[in-house]
Amino acid sequence: MSGVLKLAQKFNCFYLSGLKSCDYKPFVVEGFQVGLVRPDVMKQLLKYPEVFHVNSGCVELNPAFRDYKERSNEIDKVLRKLRAENVFIALKGWRDEFYEVKTQFNSQSLLKMDRSATCLFGIRNYGVDINGYIKHPVKGLCLWFQKRSPTKQTWPGKWDHMVGGGLSVGHGILETAHKEAMEEASVSPHLLKDLISAGCVSGGIFPNTEFVFDLELPVDFVPVNADGEVETFELLSAEQSIERILSPDFKTTSAPITLDFLIRHGVITPENEEHFLEIVELLHVPLQSIYERYAPLNSNNSVKENGIPPAVRNS
Amino acid sequence: MSGVLKLAQKFNCFYLSGLKSCDYKPFVVEGFQVGLVRPDVMKQLLKYPEVFHVNSGCVELNPAFRDYKERSNEIDKVLRKLRAENVFIALKGWRDEFYEVKTQFNSQSLLKMDRSATCLFGIRNYGVDINGYIKHPVKGLCLWFQKRSPTKQTWPGKWDHMVGGGLSVGHGILETAHKEAMEEASVSPHLLKDLISAGCVSGGIFPNTEFVFDLELPVDFVPVNADGEVETFELLSAEQSIERILSPDFKTTSAPITLDFLIRHGVITPENEEHFLEIVELLHVPLQSIYERYAPLNSNNSVKENGIPPAVRNS
Repeated sequence: MSGVLKLAQKFNCFYLSGLKSCDYKPFVVEGFQVGLVRPDVMKQLLKYPEVFHVNSGCVELNPAFRDYKERSNEIDKVLRKLRAENVFIALKGWRDEFYEVKTQFNSQSLLKMDRSATCLFGIRNYGVDINGYIKHPVKGLCLWFQKRSPTKQTWPGKWDHMVGGGLSVGHGILETAHKEAMEEASVSPHLLKDLISAGCVSGGIFPNTEFVFDLELPVDFVPVNADGEVETFELLSAEQSIERILSPDFKTTSAPITLDFLIRHGVITPENEEHFLEIVELLHVPLQSIYERYAPLNSNNSVKENGIPPAVRNS
Repeated sequence: MSGVLKLAQKFNCFYLSGLKSCDYKPFVVEGFQVGLVRPDVMKQLLKYPEVFHVNSGCVELNPAFRDYKERSNEIDKVLRKLRAENVFIALKGWRDEFYEVKTQFNSQSLLKMDRSATCLFGIRNYGVDINGYIKHPVKGLCLWFQKRSPTKQTWPGKWDHMVGGGLSVGHGILETAHKEAMEEASVSPHLLKDLISAGCVSGGIFPNTEFVFDLELPVDFVPVNADGEVETFELLSAEQSIERILSPDFKTTSAPITLDFLIRHGVITPENEEHFLEIVELLHVPLQSIYERYAPLNSNNSVKENGIPPAVRNS
């Protein structure tokens, strides 16, 4: 098996191990599926029947909770108990920073929970990424990579694509891309005029969707960090870029972004990569379908009704 | 719902209606899944128990058949009977042209069957497509489209992307792209040096995977047909291209190729298309996983063992 396919499987362990085995149950709030709960998490939630209703089909947040505030408070109380009992390693990373839980990245928030707990409930995350590249007269296509600051909370000191960041409440996708490009790499508004939306990549260790942008830069451009989140930048040829994402020094969850770029720009092709089709597929895990199980009760969307993904339907 | 999402659902009716409802059963030959059989087709195959073994999990070609020749002959006999009985409209298009049935596009053929019958068994098809485009100084990104000849057997007179063709036995992907570009649009070998592999698109009315190439052409280039398969060509702006693929005059199964191009090149973005994520997902239906159910009995590939797609596993 090729190194690239192994990598694609590694960053998609959520999809490949959990979903397909039907062990996960949808996490439902107000009739909407907002997450997927692992069996070990379910076992703990069963201890709080006044907050979580676990049945054969799903894990539902008590529908008697009246609003955003009550839902957030009730979940927060359970999470703080689980944290005190040291049940989940994930909660050791408690951040006192809330994440808004929604059905779609552009829909209203149903509740908030500590960012460290979102992985326990399989809450979808959204981010924005920029592939900064040049067309070098001699070396051909080259990509800029950043080395993350050793003080970053996640993946400190690992290599990463040029610019990336999470989507925050109230901020647009393109707006976030611009903001991050300026803060992380000092890309000028003038250069950002060439920023091109290039699709999205879905999957991940946790269910994640990244909005991807390409930015062709002048050959003599050098990114400079402005917010202290980046230790250094390095320009690599296409060949070296493949080596870099395969190395253990690369942030695992960022590999799909660079892989997608290398596929779209003719570096990794069906002629030179035997597992081309599998790899493209692993860059586009059907999260949208997987998270569409529980339409609201008053929905008359027939696609949702008939198009229930089996991973969820039979669980 | 946006017109683009409706279109994406239309060309993926195979995935959205059939697979998700678990009504389809894997078609297994020599321990490999090579297709998916619809319930109405299954009903007919039950009448030939000496050829097809239908059980709760799959439809299996009699494993007692010794080789490629015997398998092909036995299926051919059944198909000719079904054709004489007028059971399936699809067989009215009998072509006396064989299609090689394989597990992977680059693996050995297990049997051959008439091309008109492949849709009954959900046999995967593979093709090659070229998005020919220019960067116009005034109009910006423009795409070349072909109007298919009125004498073509499939989709006569419909609009289509610049160049496309099926993968034939013994011919490579890039080789086929070059051949079709020269025959259909008289693209010179000199210009073909700029041909860039850009990924693949999977899905379709029938299970189909297309290898996609982009070709930036000189602004003054005009394609000229050389093989009689094309009536005319037209250059459209990005805006006009969206209108064209949404029109009933466009070949439905080619829409995903142009959609994918427009997404990768920043024309359709998450900012201007509300259903962006659903659409990208529908361009990359996980056929590879869906068709991986039946690994050969002596396989020790743990990904296949653990990673059985539920659509198939529970059927």
